[in-house]
Order: sequence, then C-alpha cells, then structure tokens
Amino acid sequence: MKQVNVGLLGYGVVGKGIADILEANHQLIAQRTGVDIRVTKALVKDLDEVQEKPPHIEITVDPYAIFDDSSIDIVVEVMGGYEPARTFSIEAMKRGKHVVTANKACIAAHYCDLLAAAQENGVSYLFEGSVAGGIPIVRAIRDSLTANNVRSISGIINGTANYILSKMTDEKISFYEALAQAQKLGYAEVDPTFDIEGIDASHKIFILALLSWGVELDFNAIYTEGISNISPIDIELARELNNKIKLLAIAKECDGDIDIRVHPTMVGEDHPLYSVDGVFNAVYLEGDYLGPAMFYGQGAGRYPTGSAVVSDIIEIARDMACDIAGKRIQPFGYHTLRKARIVSIEEIHSAFYIRFTVKDTVGVLRDISRILSEHGISIASAIQKERGIQADDSVPFVIITHEARGYDILLSIREIERLDFCTEPPVMIRVED
Amino acid sequence: MKQVNVGLLGYGVVGKGIADILEANHQLIAQRTGVDIRVTKALVKDLDEVQEKPPHIEITVDPYAIFDDSSIDIVVEVMGGYEPARTFSIEAMKRGKHVVTANKACIAAHYCDLLAAAQENGVSYLFEGSVAGGIPIVRAIRDSLTANNVRSISGIINGTANYILSKMTDEKISFYEALAQAQKLGYAEVDPTFDIEGIDASHKIFILALLSWGVELDFNAIYTEGISNISPIDIELARELNNKIKLLAIAKECDGDIDIRVHPTMVGEDHPLYSVDGVFNAVYLEGDYLGPAMFYGQGAGRYPTGSAVVSDIIEIARDMACDIAGKRIQPFGYHTLRKARIVSIEEIHSAFYIRFTVKDTVGVLRDISRILSEHGISIASAIQKERGIQADDSVPFVIITHEARGYDILLSIREIERLDFCTEPPVMIRVED
Repeated sequence: MKQVNVGLLGYGVVGKGIADILEANHQLIAQRTGVDIRVTKALVKDLDEVQEKPPHIEITVDPYAIFDDSSIDIVVEVMGGYEPARTFSIEAMKRGKHVVTANKACIAAHYCDLLAAAQENGVSYLFEGSVAGGIPIVRAIRDSLTANNVRSISGIINGTANYILSKMTDEKISFYEALAQAQKLGYAEVDPTFDIEGIDASHKIFILALLSWGVELDFNAIYTEGISNISPIDIELARELNNKIKLLAIAKECDGDIDIRVHPTMVGEDHPLYSVDGVFNAVYLEGDYLGPAMFYGQGAGRYPTGSAVVSDIIEIARDMACDIAGKRIQPFGYHTLRKARIVSIEEIHSAFYIRFTVKDTVGVLRDISRILSEHGISIASAIQKERGIQADDSVPFVIITHEARGYDILLSIREIERLDFCTEPPVMIRVED
Repeated sequence: MKQVNVGLLGYGVVGKGIADILEANHQLIAQRTGVDIRVTKALVKDLDEVQEKPPHIEITVDPYAIFDDSSIDIVVEVMGGYEPARTFSIEAMKRGKHVVTANKACIAAHYCDLLAAAQENGVSYLFEGSVAGGIPIVRAIRDSLTANNVRSISGIINGTANYILSKMTDEKISFYEALAQAQKLGYAEVDPTFDIEGIDASHKIFILALLSWGVELDFNAIYTEGISNISPIDIELARELNNKIKLLAIAKECDGDIDIRVHPTMVGEDHPLYSVDGVFNAVYLEGDYLGPAMFYGQGAGRYPTGSAVVSDIIEIARDMACDIAGKRIQPFGYHTLRKARIVSIEEIHSAFYIRFTVKDTVGVLRDISRILSEHGISIASAIQKERGIQADDSVPFVIITHEARGYDILLSIREIERLDFCTEPPVMIRVED
C-alpha cells in the first residue's frame, strides 16, 4: 500500500487532533483511500510545549526539517496567524508539497500569493477546516453546488460570538458577563477581538464568496461590525418582537458586484438561522436551481476542525493515488478569478430596527416619522416602552422600518438624534427575513 | 475548450431540468470545469411525448443511438424504475461511458451489478441526485466525512410522506385527506405506494449506509413501515407531548452490524428534525470526530434533483480533463465492500409510545404496568384521556416507555391486547431522542 506522509506545522489543539484522528481511524481511512496516511513530523515553537511526546511523530523546531524532507508529501499548516504561516505554506509548495490549512486569516490576507504558489508548483492547496469547522461547506460549494449560481449566503460562522449572544438571550446577562463565561469555558480566547469584532467571521465569509463566485475582492472593503456594543435592552426588545440578535456573515451577488458584510442582525423565528444557538454554526444559502439549503454543525474545536482537515488530506491522498494531486481542481473551484467590486454598506437595502432613547414627551412619534418619511423611509411597526427600563426618566422608542437604503437610514438618524427629546445616541440593527 | 457530450436516458421532469440547467448555466459551468458540457441526445419512449422539441438536442426512441454514439461521454439515467434502467446503465458502461443517475430504486436493487460494471469498464458511476434531491449528502459522506466513523444517520428523506404528516399535524386532517391534497399539488403520485409505505426512504437510507460503512446489505431485510396507518389521534396525542410524528429513515453501526430501518417516529421539539416540515428533507448524522451535523434542503423536484445530477456531470468532466474519470474514486467511496448483517427490528432498543384503547374501568394502569414490568419494561409517563375522543365509550390510554427491546414490547402488547378492557388493537410508535 502506497504511504503518504504528513508534516504538521503546529502541534496545538487542531494539530494534535489531526494526529489523533489519523491514528485512531487509520484503517478506515486506508479502506477509503487505498493509501497508508501517517503524520511523521510536527513543527513546534518550543520542544518543551509538547507534554506527551507522540510515539510515531518526530517533533522539531526547524521548519526546514519538514520542507526539505523528501518523504513528506503533504504539509498541514495549523499555526494560525498571518506570518510565518504564509511564508511557510509557500516554502512548502515551492518544494512540491501539497498544503492543507485551517487558517482563514492567512487565506483572507494572502490568497493571491497562496493561489499563485499552488498553481506555479502544481500542488493542491485545500482549506475545508478554515470555515465553519466540521461543516463541509467549502467542498459543498466547490464540488456539489457547481450547477448553481449561488444567490446568497448567510452564516452563523463564529461560535464564540454565537455563544455570547445565546447566553445574553437565555440568561439576560450583559455582553461582558457572557464573554467572561465563554472565556472560562475555553470558547473565547484571552484576547477575543477577532471573534467578537466580527473579523474572524469576515475572513470566513470572504472565503465562501471566493468559492461561490470566483471573485477577487478587497478584504478591507468588507463592512465588519462586532457584537461588543449589543446591549441587553436590544436583546430583550428583540425577544418581544419574536426575534433574536445573531452575528450574521452575509454575501450576495448583485449584478456582478458582491454585497458582503458581517454585522449583528435581527432574525425572526421563521428564519432558518433563528434556532442555531450556542457554539453551533450554520450556513444557509440559496442557489438558482438548488433552492434553499442549510448546513449545520460544530464550527470549531479540536476534532470537528480536525475532521475537516483530515478530509482534505484524504482528498489529496486519493488524487495522489492517480498521480493528479494539484491538477484536478483549482483551490477555489474556478480556473480564473475575476475582480469584483464590494457594494458599499450604505447602498444596501434592508429592514432596520432603530432604538431611540427619548424623553417621554408629546410629539416623539410625529417628529421621528416626519424625518424618516422625508428620507423615503416607511415604518413597519413602532414600540414605545413605559418608564422604568432606563435609569433616568428616558424611555426606549423602537421602530422597525420597511426595506430602506442604509445611507438614508444614517442620514435620518443623524437628523433625529439632534432633536431635543433624544437623550442618547440611537442604536441601529439590520433585520433579515 | 474540450467538449463533453451528455446523452439523457429519459426526458421527463428531471431530464428536462438537467438540460435546462446545463444550457442556462453553460458559461458558469465552463468557468468551473474548463470544459464545454452539452446534452446532445435524449431517449424518450415515444416521440410524441416531447411537447417542445429542444433546439440542440436530438430526441430518439432508440437507446443504441446513444450507447453506440462515440461522441457521447456521459450517459444520464433518469428513467426511473428497475428495468430497463439497470440494463441500459450497464450497456452504456460496457461502451466506456460514464453513468450518472438519480434512480435510487435501481441502485438499491442492483448495486452489485452496477458497481461491477463500473469497475470492469473503468468508468464513473455517480448518484448524488438519488438521495435527498438537491442536498449534497452523497458527496458529503463520500468526500467530506471521510475522517469519521459515522455513528448514526437519521433522515427525513421522503418529501411526500413529510408533506402528508405535516398537513395532518397542521390541519388536523386524516391521512387520506392529506394524501389527496398532496396528489392535487403534484407532491404525490397517482400510485403513491413507494412514498407512503416507506419504500422510497428505504432505498435512500440503504444508499447512505453503503456510503457510510462500505457494506453489502440485503435490501429486503430492512424493516420498512409507512405512514398510511397513522391516525389523527396519535398526531394529536404527540402534539400534547410536544412531539411530532415523522417518517424517519435510520441507520446506525452496531459493532459491525447495521441497524437500518424506516418507520414513523415520534421526535421531541429538541430533536433537530422536529422542525423539518412540508416537502423539505434533512439528514442528521453523527461522526466520531465531526460530532453532530445536519444537512437541509429540497429533497425532490426538477431543479433541486437536476442540480445534484449536474454536479455529478461536472465531477466527471473535471476528472475527464485529467484523464482519470472512473479511476479516482469508487462509487461508494470504499475500495472493497464488506458483507454486514442487518440487526433485526425486534432486537433494537428504543423508547416507545403505545396507545391502548380501553374501556374506562378500574385497574387498567395496574394490569398494563404489571405486564410491562414482567417483560422488564419501565414506564416513563402515562396519559389517560377522558371519554368523548372515541366514538364508543372507550378511551385512549397512552404510555411512553423508557428504552426497551422491540421484542419485549411486542410480547407485552400481545399479552395486554388479550385483556378484557382492550377494545381495539394497540398502536405502537417508536420514539427518538
């Protein structure tokens, strides 16, 4: 039986998971691939960080012990971060090694370089583990939805943010209390910025957009808004409206341009993502012929992500058995990518939830609705709460608009917040059907 | 650009859908494959059945006009039924043509012959459209969950049965009223036997089991129970228990044997399949490393099924571009299949809902619980309804058991139904957590 050797760059949570899976399910994987796949080397920063020395794996601090080892066929980059992940991946590809990664940040920042290295060296570059952990959404778009123009994608693709929002909803606690719980359980990192500010989700939706439309996009043009400003008042008001607040990553094709963004979003109880709670992830999408579909599962963790990475290793091993690894399919499933423009968030139409904090006086609804109407915005519903929710004698006054342009909403909010009765800056959250 | 020609066996609902998709998304598919894919011929039974002659497709009544056409690379069998589907598929493969199908009945009955023909002739045999329509569950198991021992699969994979049960639940109507509505809307065929008796679902779960475990199974040993005996009383009692009755197809691996069955099942509101209603399908599964995952979408119809079939055509076209079509992967994702035993339904443990119809006398609970207890069955809850639900003065008496062996349940029911107070045969429905 042909042997395929794997070198791991990184032997942390996911790296160890990959080694565990390849060992525990070694025979099953051999039956599926006809190939004997083994991890032979693993790169670490410091030899002392490895508590238990794995018996069949050589641990090294020298990346070139992996790059220059001609017996290694596949290099798995699970170090995280931008560098040296990018350089190491390219070094490995230059030496004819196939590369598998779960590092979304590195792909989002450096996909052009990484793609070029894969093509120039005729090797595979696969990244199923980079989006939504164990959910096989990368391969679904690249291989299974290929008959379709993907119309739209909405995903809950950051488990940390979803856990925090679920906790805030279920236990009526503040963002910081929920974050502390998430950190205690290991669901949030000590520096949680990437997760709670939506950056991780924007890396992932960027990858899904490339796969769906074969487009080159400017990552920095993605509108990204996190959840650290979400207050319990809005969670509670959402509940009264039979809605939940979720951090959604959204991408849609609009006449060749791409609407792509990450922001807190109110979703109603009929929305397929409404009941995706805790650390679970889900991707809901629509294809022109497929119609709607949803993929649900564990979005992170040693074994779900390990399962995805190993599926990529197996794909390469199956291709290697036919001597066509790196030749059969392009990393994003398109032969060439086209440049596409990202639609500005201000141009995007949606319904909006807007919470004003107002002194409880006559004429609030009249003045607000006049200004909205001057900007062409119509109100679907309004709720005025009685006093006592806020510390002072202000009250929340909430409106849900019909579909309106982001720019018009911004202009009207700026105008309304200058009115005397507004005591705090308004809060605005987009609403998805 | 290399041209790949497709011949359709069958130009009905799905056949026409495939031709439509390949024409409408021709350019997109070329960008994804680097190949120009066209339907050039279609086989029909009778030339008069084609209302609108498609401009670029030659319609024929002679299958050999397709088999013997050396310009045709891929034959798509969408005729349905066992024969001549089997013979035609094998004839095509003998002539070196790759075959794609959506015909689950033919696969379930003849997979050995079909697999042998694919292997002997070195061609691809793909069937993504055969299970759950547009949901890419075949490729998910074959290519994406490959690192995992699949632990269990539960699916709502017959849209007709799910539509009927959803209607019965929502509108409190009888099975036959709901069936008539389904037929009126085209969701059920004139002869609905395959759908309502669970046979179609058993074809599909059989295919998923082969993919998951690489096993040869005796299709006829699958326990298959349909929904035609489900009464509105049980639907209503299920609702009172916060349950719904769903036709589930279930497969689990049990120490090398396979537990595989199709039957009406009560699922609680926390079950991931609880909210899958109407014609939608979903497959929920667990892998040892992946954990739980769910795939949801449209399980039938011209375009969802067409989307799946075209994804198989694209896979073959991508492989053809590397000259490895038929060589890269085995149809079920395993190099060899092993024979496995199907666990008898009587050996299977689960919780049970049992509805007795009893005369409202003293000692009912005492006698029933004594007999159950003698068979080692413990009661989780019991509900006795007041008079007036049944036409006579009988009342339904319902118990939910803790986990128990099917055989013990059968023995106790036989004993209990001989008691004087039982006025009708008991009704038994399995309960899944």
